[in-house]
Amino acid sequence: MGIEIERKFRIVDDQWRQKVEDDDGRRIRQFYLAVRDGFSLRVRILDEARAVMTLKTGAGLSRGEYEYEIPLDEARELEASRIGRTVEKRRYRVDLGADGLVVEVDVFEGALAPLVLAEIELPAVDHAVELPDWLGPEVTGEGAYSNSSLALAEAPPLPQQS
Amino acid sequence: MGIEIERKFRIVDDQWRQKVEDDDGRRIRQFYLAVRDGFSLRVRILDEARAVMTLKTGAGLSRGEYEYEIPLDEARELEASRIGRTVEKRRYRVDLGADGLVVEVDVFEGALAPLVLAEIELPAVDHAVELPDWLGPEVTGEGAYSNSSLALAEAPPLPQQS
Repeated sequence: MGIEIERKFRIVDDQWRQKVEDDDGRRIRQFYLAVRDGFSLRVRILDEARAVMTLKTGAGLSRGEYEYEIPLDEARELEASRIGRTVEKRRYRVDLGADGLVVEVDVFEGALAPLVLAEIELPAVDHAVELPDWLGPEVTGEGAYSNSSLALAEAPPLPQQS
Repeated sequence: MGIEIERKFRIVDDQWRQKVEDDDGRRIRQFYLAVRDGFSLRVRILDEARAVMTLKTGAGLSRGEYEYEIPLDEARELEASRIGRTVEKRRYRVDLGADGLVVEVDVFEGALAPLVLAEIELPAVDHAVELPDWLGPEVTGEGAYSNSSLALAEAPPLPQQS
């Protein structure tokens, strides 16, 4: 397991869509079966074609992540035992160019629409990167925008209209 | 998924050991990563050779059980994130003869020793079976003897000495 440096941003306008053009993105449905301090269990259904169970453990520097592919029909059955909502989103990958960096843009559907979030994974904390101007305010580390909060919070965070 | 009818008993003497003779049983170590009403996630390590993750969902007649083999080294890492204790036991299978019925005898080690429990799975609720006289008092449905209680309870149930 490497250490991931991820920065997260809101997106408040549609400029980024010019970068993906014909790409329809990937459809993601995900829900949690367990969430507590130091442990979570998430099931993600990708394009209604395959399903992955992800266990995340620990905190800080001793984090672990374990992924297991599971049968699609079993993932659908497990959905009935979820806590919170099933989060539905479409994920697009925007290539930032020469540096090999990619922004993942998540367009939320259903209860969380019209929220749009972007994540960029950096090779190091101090990695210099010229951020595209279509990224909105940075929300890295803001609990309200964590995957589990988006699934579990009574009300989703107020999205800002473009 | 069929409907399992399981009856559970305490065992308070050693007569059953004559039935297994040279069999050393299977060594089982198991722990829970999540337990709540209607959902549990257990990891079981068998003979330190392989590991199985089991998700149990629902209650009453709408129960589900999902098993996934996972890498042994990952199971060992996940143990650090358990809730409660790791339950260690040795499991023996005792054939009851013509009927094809089998009693599984669990001899607990560590914090739960000298507890010994037996489980018999029956094809129907009203299935007539002549129980061997080495089975102690029936504890079917007693919460204190459930797998999760044995892992999570502050103190294990008081075993009765033979």
